[in-house]
Amino acid sequence: MYKQVIFILILALSGSLSAQQDKQFTLEELIPGGKDYASFYPRIPVQYQWNGNSLAAIRNDSVWMIGNPARINKKTFIIRFNKIEEGMADSLGSISRLTFSREGSSVVQFHATGGTGLYDLKTKTHLSFFRYPEQSDNHLLSPDHTYLAFTKENNLYVTDKNGREWPVSDESNSGIVYGQAVHRNEFGINGGIFWSPSGRKMAFYRMDETMVSDYPLVDVSARVANVKNSKYPMAGMTSHRVTIGVFDTTTKETIWLKTGEPDDHYLTNIAWSPDGKSVYVAELNRAQNRMQLNRYDASTGHFDQTLFEENHSAYVEPENPVLFVKGNEEQFIWQSRRNGYNHLYLYDITGKMLKQLTDGTWEVTEVTGFDEKGEHLYFISTLPSPLDRHICSVALKSGRITQHNTLPGMHTAMLSASGRYLTDRYTAHDNPGRIDLIDTSSGKATLLSRAENPFGGNNMPTVELGRVKAADKVTDLYYRLIKPAVFDALKKYPVAVYVYGGPHSQMVSNRWRYGSGGWETYMAQKGYIVFVMDNRGTSYRGSAFEQVTHRRLGVVEAEDQMRGVEFLKSLPYVDSERMGIHGWSYGGFMTINMLLRYPGVFRVGVAGGPVIDWKYYEVMYGERYMDTPQENPEGYEESSLLNKADRLQSRLLIIHGDEDPTVVMQHTLQFLKASIGAGTHPDLFLYPGHGHNMTGHDRVHLHEHITRYFEDFIRKE
Amino acid sequence: MYKQVIFILILALSGSLSAQQDKQFTLEELIPGGKDYASFYPRIPVQYQWNGNSLAAIRNDSVWMIGNPARINKKTFIIRFNKIEEGMADSLGSISRLTFSREGSSVVQFHATGGTGLYDLKTKTHLSFFRYPEQSDNHLLSPDHTYLAFTKENNLYVTDKNGREWPVSDESNSGIVYGQAVHRNEFGINGGIFWSPSGRKMAFYRMDETMVSDYPLVDVSARVANVKNSKYPMAGMTSHRVTIGVFDTTTKETIWLKTGEPDDHYLTNIAWSPDGKSVYVAELNRAQNRMQLNRYDASTGHFDQTLFEENHSAYVEPENPVLFVKGNEEQFIWQSRRNGYNHLYLYDITGKMLKQLTDGTWEVTEVTGFDEKGEHLYFISTLPSPLDRHICSVALKSGRITQHNTLPGMHTAMLSASGRYLTDRYTAHDNPGRIDLIDTSSGKATLLSRAENPFGGNNMPTVELGRVKAADKVTDLYYRLIKPAVFDALKKYPVAVYVYGGPHSQMVSNRWRYGSGGWETYMAQKGYIVFVMDNRGTSYRGSAFEQVTHRRLGVVEAEDQMRGVEFLKSLPYVDSERMGIHGWSYGGFMTINMLLRYPGVFRVGVAGGPVIDWKYYEVMYGERYMDTPQENPEGYEESSLLNKADRLQSRLLIIHGDEDPTVVMQHTLQFLKASIGAGTHPDLFLYPGHGHNMTGHDRVHLHEHITRYFEDFIRKE
Repeated sequence: MYKQVIFILILALSGSLSAQQDKQFTLEELIPGGKDYASFYPRIPVQYQWNGNSLAAIRNDSVWMIGNPARINKKTFIIRFNKIEEGMADSLGSISRLTFSREGSSVVQFHATGGTGLYDLKTKTHLSFFRYPEQSDNHLLSPDHTYLAFTKENNLYVTDKNGREWPVSDESNSGIVYGQAVHRNEFGINGGIFWSPSGRKMAFYRMDETMVSDYPLVDVSARVANVKNSKYPMAGMTSHRVTIGVFDTTTKETIWLKTGEPDDHYLTNIAWSPDGKSVYVAELNRAQNRMQLNRYDASTGHFDQTLFEENHSAYVEPENPVLFVKGNEEQFIWQSRRNGYNHLYLYDITGKMLKQLTDGTWEVTEVTGFDEKGEHLYFISTLPSPLDRHICSVALKSGRITQHNTLPGMHTAMLSASGRYLTDRYTAHDNPGRIDLIDTSSGKATLLSRAENPFGGNNMPTVELGRVKAADKVTDLYYRLIKPAVFDALKKYPVAVYVYGGPHSQMVSNRWRYGSGGWETYMAQKGYIVFVMDNRGTSYRGSAFEQVTHRRLGVVEAEDQMRGVEFLKSLPYVDSERMGIHGWSYGGFMTINMLLRYPGVFRVGVAGGPVIDWKYYEVMYGERYMDTPQENPEGYEESSLLNKADRLQSRLLIIHGDEDPTVVMQHTLQFLKASIGAGTHPDLFLYPGHGHNMTGHDRVHLHEHITRYFEDFIRKE
Repeated sequence: MYKQVIFILILALSGSLSAQQDKQFTLEELIPGGKDYASFYPRIPVQYQWNGNSLAAIRNDSVWMIGNPARINKKTFIIRFNKIEEGMADSLGSISRLTFSREGSSVVQFHATGGTGLYDLKTKTHLSFFRYPEQSDNHLLSPDHTYLAFTKENNLYVTDKNGREWPVSDESNSGIVYGQAVHRNEFGINGGIFWSPSGRKMAFYRMDETMVSDYPLVDVSARVANVKNSKYPMAGMTSHRVTIGVFDTTTKETIWLKTGEPDDHYLTNIAWSPDGKSVYVAELNRAQNRMQLNRYDASTGHFDQTLFEENHSAYVEPENPVLFVKGNEEQFIWQSRRNGYNHLYLYDITGKMLKQLTDGTWEVTEVTGFDEKGEHLYFISTLPSPLDRHICSVALKSGRITQHNTLPGMHTAMLSASGRYLTDRYTAHDNPGRIDLIDTSSGKATLLSRAENPFGGNNMPTVELGRVKAADKVTDLYYRLIKPAVFDALKKYPVAVYVYGGPHSQMVSNRWRYGSGGWETYMAQKGYIVFVMDNRGTSYRGSAFEQVTHRRLGVVEAEDQMRGVEFLKSLPYVDSERMGIHGWSYGGFMTINMLLRYPGVFRVGVAGGPVIDWKYYEVMYGERYMDTPQENPEGYEESSLLNKADRLQSRLLIIHGDEDPTVVMQHTLQFLKASIGAGTHPDLFLYPGHGHNMTGHDRVHLHEHITRYFEDFIRKE
């Protein structure tokens, strides 16, 4: 029955598409939040998870199990979500997903709207429920499934399956926050609760923000507009103070790691030793140019040892905690860019480096995990091209590196318990998404499931990949170029450059349509050439590539983007008199930056949520790239757009969410003020009630608004 | 020497102008705040004040005296301001103006930046100094020149000439305000300090705003944006509580008038009895449909008597306190629109109406004062045309009304002590401003001083006056129509309609160029026809004309403006496909209102500081015209623009000051939100740091921005 359903679906799809070869896609179809977006977003119909060495296949709310990965066609129907929902003594709402046991147990954790719990797939019985208290958040079940940790307002609690609740913190001052992500989610931080391997103890963050200035966000949806203050430490100003507690579920007592002074340091990448006796913390100074990997006693909080230290003249940026070698409590993996690229290092717990496991002018981007015996470590890498992500493994003993996938593209992997098999989920410019099963011993790949091309037989705008030399005349920069479906090289086309250009980003890679998004398709449909290029300062190309922008954001990035512009101007079919540029966040900064540093190049710019002056940006990200305004006044001056507002010659639309807590509206308003003083005329639009990005259906309006501005001032003039 | 200076100036002026017959004026020249605005704004070079029956003439900082108004050429030089400044024991800064004694004393009050004081022009000696304490405000000298009252932060103080200071209030709660204007300056209120005639006592307002909700205004000019809360009672919500204190300078004690309940009533138009024993207060209920004129004992605060009461089904709106007849402590004048037009009534202090002094389908707009014997009351009126303001007097005994000026125009008067002479300051469509001396016995008028036409011999856009019938097909509405200087009736011209349309306004009157402002000239220079019309709901035409909009603001006003549009469309030289509309505040409301009620009429609208929904407007003004949202839900719904955002077909630019305390930014932001939801696309601009109006040089930028929007979407499309 399962195969039949697919067959019917495909028929229906191709039938409807063959009748629409020249369909012009609407923003409702192309933009996330659009009414018809889901129909045109590539979707792999079946999802997979390892359950030991068996493979669970989930399609919608039904679960099958493939007992032997060598015979993927032999699968057994297991259960539907609603069967689990029905069996609950007290409803926890609908189930959105299951977490299977990596070890192969038949007990799954289900995640429902109102709580979580354990269910035995074999006996078809519920084992436990953990109801989420009202307005609670950050729910995290302990590894032994005994306790659920959660936060409510700013406090941290644990509860057991009987609903008994223990407060871990009892703070009335809302400026002090427990159990949540700190340091504004930099340094790889995405949560504030860290269970020990056994689940007996729980490390957690405490953040004191009482000394941080409030940034006022005004909510106009209330009867009378009211202020929601946001603790926002701006570059060079007083920052918050973070400490780490360890809660013992047995004694219900908390000890504090003695992380010491100065207290505006960064406590990042928390990890437990396998025996649960120690906590590892990667500690950075506020200047972010020194990292110490420190170990603390989890029972007393005493500082144990600095295992090693990393220093860099620009900055260090650990984003991954220590990872212990499977079955070996004495050794761990550390990721570092100390030699210019992110690589894997093997350490022992005395802090001695045993071996550099990977090396070269490429980066490890993600660690997948160990095989059963801890002999091979699987990871994702940019080897051999930064446009791709390949699944590799390294043999810890020999250092031999094996690539497991064959086709280029962006791959991620999940490993079976033994390590014999992995699922390879990937996409490439001509592949909207598929999942293969790879036998790591033979290298054989078998298709598990794949997404259809959502645009079917339509004559779509074409996406080309290419490279230009950076302003240094040496470095290759990658671009994608989107052309209208019906393209006449003898005509002249207007151009829309889409830009981001900041750290932690890569816009161009070998994913579906080279990463080209719905708005690019839309603009190409309207007859624009769209161009997107990753300048220096972006990611996955090593430290030198990224850090060339250090202390003067916007300068080198703009020089590089101008090489892209020159390339565009060299194309006979480009109308260089009708070029526009658009970007969001760092890309908003870049958009205005380009207009002001190179007046006359672009006729139009649309900047969303733009940084205008880095002094209004936050401490963690801002000081990493710019140092403080006190330390680097010339750099801040050079990067600032406030002092360049008089140079505006183009049409510039600035868009901001009026409750943006990330790039606060002060940026845009101060730029307006500077422009008014300088007698220049940017335009403005605000999205009330929105934060840094417009989500939901309003995102369609946003792209209509952006497009309209291009049309108004590029096409009609 | 005096005459010679004028002569040279005129020569210089006309010389420079004759060389510029076709000058195109810039916004810097046409807009207040512009760098060259002062050169092109009509300025009467000499100002006059009565000093008893002598006439003081002030030109820049020099003072002359005309001892006998019958011989105006015989004038004596008296003093220059800097002479008075030099003589100060301790500098109070530079003097901006002098207040001469109406009784004819040689003692003048000078007003300097740092204080005020008395100076004897005869003896050329200083009599007293009152230094303004730092950050003090609302300075008011007692009539006997003994005490200076002032406010500092929210408290009220008096000081004497020796610098001794007495706190009248000592309030630490900033939500309670003393000595300042209350009720948001409605009901003619423009201050909070009221000296008794002798200067022994001082009545003052106390306003408790602690129960009023805060509206957050965000100041982005600070290092980190911060909130300045503004107490803003919105329609239907809890309002502030006002009481009246009386401070006795002899005892330094305060008593409170027992004004009673309900305490959200309005205490307006405070006046003293001539003997200083009673205080008169015009009290309105919150619904504003009942006014009681009440008298209180100034020594005890006890309620004495309700003299009379006025009721109206829509609203009553007293804006002038009782005025005692000169030399008669038993009789006073009361202004009321009780018969549909604002007229003068003579009362005695028992509350008995003795006589209606004026009557007819015209209004008294201002009372000038009594002659020496209290036999004639001088006033300004709309008799015979609402486009003009004439100087009239009424004989209290006979009721005979005399008009004292001859030429049409907008006149204001100041009366000599005897009442024999008056200065008549006026302007008319062809008169940029002049001051005549009128002998009230002979009616003879003599020119004192006049402004030059600042545009000299230039070929300026023409301004025409005319009338169209209102939507009721009966009422005349007045308009002005501005045409380009070089006009060809065979061509088609685009149109800019400028609109206000709300209560308390009159845009079209017989003043210089019929009131046409600099932006209208600028637009006409650019080839637009500009049209401005006062619809029903505006002022000086009586209650019925004004109150036809009651409880449904925007409906009748728009119907009337559409009659103006139809008139425009009937003109052969109007391009009805290229019409735009612009207005500010109520005019911003009207602009959007017109676009949404009559989609397709205007291609472009520019709305500044617009009211979008009256529920976000304040209690005093809002409830007068709309009642509360609870009482009038249908009217609020009908007036609201939020529920009509889907009807937007035109290009609409909304402009707001981001610290607007009058029409708060919630209006504009909520309209954006509604538009986003409806899929329509208004445009936006904000002026950071500005309130309800853009002042200073930014006002030039504003008008450039408005003009650009018209040009973008009317001319270029």
